Amino acid sequence: MTTATMDAPVIAPAVQPVPETAAEVRPKEFLIINYSGDLEKIWASMIMASTSAAMGVRTRVFVTFWGLQAFVKDDRRVTGQNWMQKMLAVMQRPGISHRKLSKMDFFGMGPWMMRKLAAQYHVASPKELLEAAQAMGVEFIPCQMTMDMFGLKPEDMIEGMGEPVGAATVIGLLTEDSVPLFI
Amino acid sequence: MTTATMDAPVIAPAVQPVPETAAEVRPKEFLIINYSGDLEKIWASMIMASTSAAMGVRTRVFVTFWGLQAFVKDDRRVTGQNWMQKMLAVMQRPGISHRKLSKMDFFGMGPWMMRKLAAQYHVASPKELLEAAQAMGVEFIPCQMTMDMFGLKPEDMIEGMGEPVGAATVIGLLTEDSVPLFI
Amino acid sequence: MTTATMDAPVIAPAVQPVPETAAEVRPKEFLIINYSGDLEKIWASMIMASTSAAMGVRTRVFVTFWGLQAFVKDDRRVTGQNWMQKMLAVMQRPGISHRKLSKMDFFGMGPWMMRKLAAQYHVASPKELLEAAQAMGVEFIPCQMTMDMFGLKPEDMIEGMGEPVGAATVIGLLTEDSVPLFI
Repeated sequence: MTTATMDAPVIAPAVQPVPETAAEVRPKEFLIINYSGDLEKIWASMIMASTSAAMGVRTRVFVTFWGLQAFVKDDRRVTGQNWMQKMLAVMQRPGISHRKLSKMDFFGMGPWMMRKLAAQYHVASPKELLEAAQAMGVEFIPCQMTMDMFGLKPEDMIEGMGEPVGAATVIGLLTEDSVPLFI
Repeated sequence: MTTATMDAPVIAPAVQPVPETAAEVRPKEFLIINYSGDLEKIWASMIMASTSAAMGVRTRVFVTFWGLQAFVKDDRRVTGQNWMQKMLAVMQRPGISHRKLSKMDFFGMGPWMMRKLAAQYHVASPKELLEAAQAMGVEFIPCQMTMDMFGLKPEDMIEGMGEPVGAATVIGLLTEDSVPLFI
Repeated sequence: MTTATMDAPVIAPAVQPVPETAAEVRPKEFLIINYSGDLEKIWASMIMASTSAAMGVRTRVFVTFWGLQAFVKDDRRVTGQNWMQKMLAVMQRPGISHRKLSKMDFFGMGPWMMRKLAAQYHVASPKELLEAAQAMGVEFIPCQMTMDMFGLKPEDMIEGMGEPVGAATVIGLLTEDSVPLFI
């Protein structure tokens, strides 16, 4: 059932051009492989995803490894089934509102400054951008293997995420006209 | 006026093949999304951009987030309008000649060794590669949002940069035959 | 001789579709630019490469910068010709079995936990995935410039690697239908 999510025409273009050879004239789609959980990269990912969807481009975000922690519900404090998974969650608090900068974090001072500067220049927060992206039909797809390794259950994740999929689904998208960015 | 930069045929191929369906037979273009400001990634980015341009491939470098600091003039010490922006610049000195390694920096010892090894094996410095890239027509395009958030003004940036653009321009390039790398 | 490696049809599809215009109907190929040497990124890279090859997609991994250290033989302790190169190898032990996490490494505790979790959920180790990828025909191609700068010799590298190539070969692949990820 994992492929069902991938094939659902969430943002269907109104008019499909008649294909000459099927593979080539498909409109390009956009695929973000959101690997990082750092504040600034999550921000970049959400800006790209929401902009792309707003432009009518079918947009998917495959969420994997550290990135998956950003799409855990903000109010979850400890996730995981065993002590190792719980320890990982404790050391790196999950949720999009608790991301840290990859450098100059200074125990939260860096992110606080970034958020303040963003507000001053009317740049939406990662959480707002995520909500906008979802409203515009961006599909967020978790990585099954990461879910397993971090002991994350579907109910830990934000509302509206797709079914977890594996690497094969991602390779499939890459080799059929999805333009990928690994962030 | 931001799109003017993007459409200018800086490296126009001498002969254009007759298109069957317009979108497909355009020659591929190369787009680097230069997100990182670390010495080694700036180096990778400049090697790829200058090589690509030398091969006659139209090449653009969209410079965003930490990457933007690498394209501030080398002699600027403090940039930004408010104390937060100035503090960011002080903590992470702008300019392509002042990049640090992401690991093993050791207060400049790592970069010094890298530069020494590069010189020994006749690898050009990031600054030399940047100048070569510009001479061969690589377009460097700053991210408007990052300019705003970091308080950077056009006169802070190196000579010859394009007009700042937003994410939509990047998405536009991605979905028309630009091959992207997020570095 | 560097291009020989690139053109060898390691995974030749049994049936080739008749091309209308040569460039377009080539089956897409997958190119990983493996830049990072961090455990979690090497893992991601090996999962993608082995999955892709298993799906019959021609798959190449261009190994550059920190990534190159992961493809040095596991039993090499010190590599390089001069003291700077040797020092880099000492500070960052080469070999795919000695990778460190980019964060939460805690002197090897993080990687130990990751490997334990992976074993528990039947995720193969990076070394096992590398061997599977090679068995399925993934081509691993070292970056000549990095080999030079780090003082690495072909006999330092794992068995079965291709001839070292430069950036031009990578750009060539990008602009002919290889889908790239920069990891």
